[in-house]
Amino acid sequence: SAAFITMFRTAAKMLSVASTSSFSRRILSIRYYCKRTPTKLRLSEAVSGSKLGANVQVQGWVRSVRPQKKNLFLHVNDGSTLQPLQIVASSGLLTFGCAVEVTGTLKQSPHQKQLVELEADQILVVGECNPVDFPFKIKERHNLEYIRQFPHLRCRTNAFSSLLRIRSEATTAIHSYFRENGFVQIHTPIITSNDCEGAGELFQVEPQSPENDEDANFFSVPAFLTVSGQLHLEVMSGGFSRVYTFGPTFRAENSQSRRHLAEFYMVEAEVSFTQSIEDLTKVMEDMFRSATEDVLAHCAEDVALFHKHVTPGHRDTVDHMLKKRFPVITYTEAIDILNRSSQKFAFPTQWGCDLQTEHEKYLVKHCGNIPVFVTDYPYELKPFYARDNEDHPEHTAAAVDLLVPGVGELCGGSLREERLDLLRTRLEEAGLQDTYSWYLDLRRFGSVPHGGFGLGFERYLQCILGVDNIKDVIPFPRFSHSCLL
Amino acid sequence: SAAFITMFRTAAKMLSVASTSSFSRRILSIRYYCKRTPTKLRLSEAVSGSKLGANVQVQGWVRSVRPQKKNLFLHVNDGSTLQPLQIVASSGLLTFGCAVEVTGTLKQSPHQKQLVELEADQILVVGECNPVDFPFKIKERHNLEYIRQFPHLRCRTNAFSSLLRIRSEATTAIHSYFRENGFVQIHTPIITSNDCEGAGELFQVEPQSPENDEDANFFSVPAFLTVSGQLHLEVMSGGFSRVYTFGPTFRAENSQSRRHLAEFYMVEAEVSFTQSIEDLTKVMEDMFRSATEDVLAHCAEDVALFHKHVTPGHRDTVDHMLKKRFPVITYTEAIDILNRSSQKFAFPTQWGCDLQTEHEKYLVKHCGNIPVFVTDYPYELKPFYARDNEDHPEHTAAAVDLLVPGVGELCGGSLREERLDLLRTRLEEAGLQDTYSWYLDLRRFGSVPHGGFGLGFERYLQCILGVDNIKDVIPFPRFSHSCLL
Repeated sequence: SAAFITMFRTAAKMLSVASTSSFSRRILSIRYYCKRTPTKLRLSEAVSGSKLGANVQVQGWVRSVRPQKKNLFLHVNDGSTLQPLQIVASSGLLTFGCAVEVTGTLKQSPHQKQLVELEADQILVVGECNPVDFPFKIKERHNLEYIRQFPHLRCRTNAFSSLLRIRSEATTAIHSYFRENGFVQIHTPIITSNDCEGAGELFQVEPQSPENDEDANFFSVPAFLTVSGQLHLEVMSGGFSRVYTFGPTFRAENSQSRRHLAEFYMVEAEVSFTQSIEDLTKVMEDMFRSATEDVLAHCAEDVALFHKHVTPGHRDTVDHMLKKRFPVITYTEAIDILNRSSQKFAFPTQWGCDLQTEHEKYLVKHCGNIPVFVTDYPYELKPFYARDNEDHPEHTAAAVDLLVPGVGELCGGSLREERLDLLRTRLEEAGLQDTYSWYLDLRRFGSVPHGGFGLGFERYLQCILGVDNIKDVIPFPRFSHSCLL
Repeated sequence: SAAFITMFRTAAKMLSVASTSSFSRRILSIRYYCKRTPTKLRLSEAVSGSKLGANVQVQGWVRSVRPQKKNLFLHVNDGSTLQPLQIVASSGLLTFGCAVEVTGTLKQSPHQKQLVELEADQILVVGECNPVDFPFKIKERHNLEYIRQFPHLRCRTNAFSSLLRIRSEATTAIHSYFRENGFVQIHTPIITSNDCEGAGELFQVEPQSPENDEDANFFSVPAFLTVSGQLHLEVMSGGFSRVYTFGPTFRAENSQSRRHLAEFYMVEAEVSFTQSIEDLTKVMEDMFRSATEDVLAHCAEDVALFHKHVTPGHRDTVDHMLKKRFPVITYTEAIDILNRSSQKFAFPTQWGCDLQTEHEKYLVKHCGNIPVFVTDYPYELKPFYARDNEDHPEHTAAAVDLLVPGVGELCGGSLREERLDLLRTRLEEAGLQDTYSWYLDLRRFGSVPHGGFGLGFERYLQCILGVDNIKDVIPFPRFSHSCLL
């Protein structure tokens, strides 16, 4: 097979014609046949300017074609960079979207806006693309809503391939932050038998065709898709002082809003031997800064595409966010701010009410349009694991949310109740002491003060790019009534 | 809250007594109360020797207690390293498994086997551990099968915390390999509507309590847990020359064997503009070597624990594996080798049969007990997407498996059928042309020769550590009749 393909391709080049089954592999622009084997480069290497004068070969998809009197100018992209490599060829028949292999010489470009250009000796059309059927058109800037209709083709647009590089870089940046700060990565499970956390609607999991008994569960117990890796991270907090997880989580929310997905990514961390909620806000803020600085530095052009064409002006918002330390206010202070405001809110703002998106947005604006921590929420609003502050008359739990411009709640976290008797009482009140006997065990054997938080990764991307719809920052969005591919 | 906790802890230290609810926080071994704020160190920092003479504080769980005439010697662990920090204290009541905070001075150790030891001024018991109820006992080496019974506590053993650090490091190493080689990471979806790949039994996903109609699907179509991210990676291969994914995949296999899990991790990569199967074997071999060398270098002590106590002698197997390039044989050659062997096999070995584990193990041994690639499998054995070699009389597909010592199949991959007409014909024969019209579209618009592979991450860990049971290399194993926590 290998020999066959190599032979075939060599033959195709020698003969300057090629046809394999329904594809016609056409070779255009042959100036001379070069015996010297060209160096294969990715586009990101080619545009760097380090290989000037070299005989090279690049491969990719045609993103623009501009015929001029004598020459044909084209831009080819292989996903490694947004920066275009201008290719100069004698004229030929090339369409937007087709895949090509270009051999030629890297030369200094006479134009200001680019360092190098590739003078093509040979262009081999590897895969055709019928411009009539292809949903993206040459020289048109399609908006995110339009390209979202074609999940199997949208990575061929500049905007979405930039998004995917940014998402990949942000993932790397978050892993790097945790690694450099001594966190051990834990693959918390996707399928879980925990069903009582009350974090939202659950998806249940069963084999497509149960083998014997329709009523018997595959796992012997009902099993669900995880809504959070927190409890499993807490297991690890009994042996590791710093752990984190970064993976998919699920909510069966019947919503098609621009804020919700049925499958989304969360970054969750858990820190042992905490002394106060500041041990958590420090990690949240440091991670946010570190990841954002990495993305801005390593994906400058990709980010600029969004900040120029998709969400003009957003770069200023991002720079502004990173200037100052994030302020910290208590929930009680937040309620005071809302009640002193002249703005009319749709939802109530008395002490004890949950903060709604409208409230979160107001608080962010009030604090100068930068991320703001809100701490010490009413005890009754928080789940059983939140640490009791044992204060009064306003009874609060040591919980914290990070609110950010445009998005609202980006992170939520808390110190966890590490005291066996308080936790047991609360679980007994909820009738959950048997279900969570393993969780109580964690407090029986070498319990330590600890706490953690979760960050919604798609919301993070929306926050730094200014993208309005969450479906535009994930490769394959899943939501109510939609599971394409 | 923050102030309260800090105040409380300071008070506790000053008074040398502490009791918070049912926990008694006891302070042992006070020599003097030091006003100077000690430097907080993780154990990995403390044992490095760079802070000799410093007044420090460490926190962790007691892993051994050895009372001697005058002094108490204890080892404390915080998950950051397997290396023990010996702590010398005047005697006190400390049990295996309890959580402590130790303040004292780092001194050069008089003993050969360690660089530093910590002379304790103060030991605060943060969380008690009743040695009667705690399932792990001091000075006992519990085997993996025993500790597996306590999924919520097993990270508190040396063996399993070493495993988790190795798993975290191997994850980082794999991401690093791909990043350094220009691959973009894609989060392929967990929930998918693809159901026809035939890769094994599927799990179906539905909300726990369907809101309106019991018969209506949440996603409007039946939805399943992914068995592979390949097809979604292939989508991205139309715009990126190199992509990969690393995440959980699922099989509803009714097996409790030591080789199978219902939820396991796969590393999958897809390369565009391939010329032959060697473009894939190179990535597989390079990734295997790069990750393994990283793990051996960065987790030397953790790996040594396995190679000394769990699987004695396995280090030689690993070193031997890395010495030579991995040999490549065709399926046809493999069948010849099996048929020439004097070994009796339970399963048939004529041309056209699938290779069974017994065959794979024999082939690995035959090739010198190192990883071996087997290529060009019978066309009929492979799924619709495998590239037709168009050879005869023995009709094969351009597929490749990597077989490794002890485990058998570690990776499986293939060149993908990029030719529209061949792919369409095969899908039509299977009646799948409508289901996969989006997949055919990928070949309609700028199709390129491409291929990829998947690696079973747990099997990889088993291979380098020599661990026999797959349940011992994943934090929370899920399999038929078991979904604990």
